[in-house]
Amino acid sequence: MSFDPSSLKFNEAGLIPAIAQDENSGEVLMMAWMNADAVEQTLRTRRVTYWSRSRQSFWVKGESSGHVQELVDFRVDCDRDCLLLVVRQTGPACHTNRRSCFYTGVREGEEVELMAPLP
Amino acid sequence: MSFDPSSLKFNEAGLIPAIAQDENSGEVLMMAWMNADAVEQTLRTRRVTYWSRSRQSFWVKGESSGHVQELVDFRVDCDRDCLLLVVRQTGPACHTNRRSCFYTGVREGEEVELMAPLP
Repeated sequence: MSFDPSSLKFNEAGLIPAIAQDENSGEVLMMAWMNADAVEQTLRTRRVTYWSRSRQSFWVKGESSGHVQELVDFRVDCDRDCLLLVVRQTGPACHTNRRSCFYTGVREGEEVELMAPLP
Repeated sequence: MSFDPSSLKFNEAGLIPAIAQDENSGEVLMMAWMNADAVEQTLRTRRVTYWSRSRQSFWVKGESSGHVQELVDFRVDCDRDCLLLVVRQTGPACHTNRRSCFYTGVREGEEVELMAPLP
């Protein structure tokens, strides 16, 4: 069946959450949002493009930092309301210069830093 | 620093997205939503508990199916608006009886089933 971005379930703001996972390590790198145009652009260019809710504009990941995400595989969940992007990540995914945005663990009620910024 | 669920950034409905990842395979299993009470309950019981938006009630994952998720690690992202749950999954995570909800790939414009239901 041919894939149509408009067949996805977007929220009231026209957005769908997209999880980025590293193709090699399997590490979950980040979660951000896409609208239908960002989905189409990501599939066409293979350069992961989100929708920035704060800037209300396309966000070609890594456009300014160089920390781009090349799309390796694009997956849709059973409810069609969440995306999983398997990516080839250049540099750190997180704006704090860490590999992943999920660098804070909660262990026995305390917040623990699990990952240092890259040098 | 002590972790306080109310320090998370919830959306206008009081919810935060939570990604479940298999502790062994690293596979991304599903994404669902939590409110502050579901976060607290998950951390206290180590049994992953979401908030069902359709039923507007707690959803102790696997309570009826037996396909429970035992919490192994709880992580918060840099913006504090998304959670990553590393889990020990019993049985399939998806209600379609597949290991993961992300069983549909988009390849060269076509939807492809990547994973069959478990027998």
